Amino acid sequence: MTEDALVESIRSIVTSPASRRLRVGIGDDAAAWQPSRSHLSVITTDALIETVHFTRAAMRADDVGHRALAANLSDIAAMGARPILATIAFGISSEVDETWVCDFYRGLAALADRTGTAIAGGDIVRAPVVSISITVVGEVRATSIKTRDGARPGDILAVTGPLGASRAGCEILLDRPDLANDARFADALHAFRRPEPRLRAGRFLGVSRNVHAMMDTSDGIASDLSRMCAASNVGAVLDRLPIAPAAERYCVQCELEQQSFALEAGEDFELLVAIDPRAFGYIAARFRAHTGHALIGIGEVTAETGIRTRAGSLVVARGYDHLTPR
Amino acid sequence: MTEDALVESIRSIVTSPASRRLRVGIGDDAAAWQPSRSHLSVITTDALIETVHFTRAAMRADDVGHRALAANLSDIAAMGARPILATIAFGISSEVDETWVCDFYRGLAALADRTGTAIAGGDIVRAPVVSISITVVGEVRATSIKTRDGARPGDILAVTGPLGASRAGCEILLDRPDLANDARFADALHAFRRPEPRLRAGRFLGVSRNVHAMMDTSDGIASDLSRMCAASNVGAVLDRLPIAPAAERYCVQCELEQQSFALEAGEDFELLVAIDPRAFGYIAARFRAHTGHALIGIGEVTAETGIRTRAGSLVVARGYDHLTPR
Repeated sequence: MTEDALVESIRSIVTSPASRRLRVGIGDDAAAWQPSRSHLSVITTDALIETVHFTRAAMRADDVGHRALAANLSDIAAMGARPILATIAFGISSEVDETWVCDFYRGLAALADRTGTAIAGGDIVRAPVVSISITVVGEVRATSIKTRDGARPGDILAVTGPLGASRAGCEILLDRPDLANDARFADALHAFRRPEPRLRAGRFLGVSRNVHAMMDTSDGIASDLSRMCAASNVGAVLDRLPIAPAAERYCVQCELEQQSFALEAGEDFELLVAIDPRAFGYIAARFRAHTGHALIGIGEVTAETGIRTRAGSLVVARGYDHLTPR
Repeated sequence: MTEDALVESIRSIVTSPASRRLRVGIGDDAAAWQPSRSHLSVITTDALIETVHFTRAAMRADDVGHRALAANLSDIAAMGARPILATIAFGISSEVDETWVCDFYRGLAALADRTGTAIAGGDIVRAPVVSISITVVGEVRATSIKTRDGARPGDILAVTGPLGASRAGCEILLDRPDLANDARFADALHAFRRPEPRLRAGRFLGVSRNVHAMMDTSDGIASDLSRMCAASNVGAVLDRLPIAPAAERYCVQCELEQQSFALEAGEDFELLVAIDPRAFGYIAARFRAHTGHALIGIGEVTAETGIRTRAGSLVVARGYDHLTPR
């Protein structure tokens, strides 16, 4: 397997209708495209390391490809943007063969196709373990871009779906293989292997001036809401968090406290938003009509910093820190 | 060292005047900027893996940072473009501390500043070895973009500088530490540790319609010229290659054949161009006046495929393939 031959195989997998946007595609020193004259460009990068973020025993190559791109698309969704193109830096270990690599690109390319994301290029190198770094460029109107620093006291905090299923799936794959074939947890495994970035929801919420702040929940509400509050210089009170049915079953099975699990569970790609309270009802109704999903209120932004429950106790728990051993 | 604390340290290192171009910078789900309305955007990604591309014993953290960004900027230069921003995916191993990481970003940020490249964000994860993946976005007028597929029979092939110094430095660091403190090889070590992307040269050559194809020489002339010829569906005859004085001394020291060394030596960030023969003299004179360097002819593009010497023997040697063990 030489680099040029492998690049040729990959090029045939990732070429799609979205590639037409590219003036120069895979195979040159850089790719080129004409950015929209009326939009801002956005860019995000995520890295996925074998043994740290996934294991080949627990995840199929095409699922790794899907999930790796989905993580980036979730960041694009969180800005209110649409994806344009992606580049992939791929570190191949001696443990994987051409089939694994091509399956990875097939899983990634299927999601790229479906979301209109052109694969614009990348780099392929040797590495001790499979190491994937994906960068996605998107576009958004300057009037629709959303950041995490705009939450205001009184805003309603909401998420685009129930929490915890993806985290439950991750824990089952890593720590509870005995549950992996249990039909009660199929949804949890699917949520982890094939998370769906909330691109449609993100664009819908992006155009509303009453959505003051938005981010994704990939590190868990505890950690992500802390970041939104810090960026906005506000605090929050939390109501009961919505937990996905599969995550609820997992908590019952493993005797875990459900609200703590929902609060700490990362791996989800829902969006967290702060919405003007006067507009929340209207936006939630239109959100349901537009996406088919509920926009679920989870609390309220406060002027006082810190995150508390309605009963007043401080939520001291922290989310998943990428650099702290778990 | 928590992720949020480390991100804060890094943010203070990489914030520069170029950051003003960003509408949203480090710390949100994605960064945002206003692309030029009159240019194409270009994007390139390169990965650098410890033990594969560098060792911490042989290279200082700031040199690794410089070199990692320089590799990407060289690709931007090869398109005739100027850099706008970069994102960095950084896999940190348990072997490196915060000082190493910050020194890496300092080396990278100094080159970014000097070239007007804003650091727009990235991702920081744990990894078994230091794993760096950098993506750079640049801009170029549609009339100035250069690719590798435009070489025409009769074109003069030229490079923007003598070859081999960087490769000699790399080999000394990896295989001949006994030569590392020899003053005769200081230039070679510097060429490897602090390669200078040819951004000014690339932009100058990009605007000329008589420059038909351009790419960088990071994998060595044998490999890179093969790629240009394949993309352009042409062949080439090669004259004597220009070899850097430090590389010449290294070849003498190690009893290596100089022309083979210059042909195979990767790690260089010179540009390889195919230029209309009627315009070559004029462009070379203006190139020297503009950049202070010679544009050095190395051969000619032929209709017949394959790369040959003037004497007619086939240059079968191949360059460095990233996936073939050396």
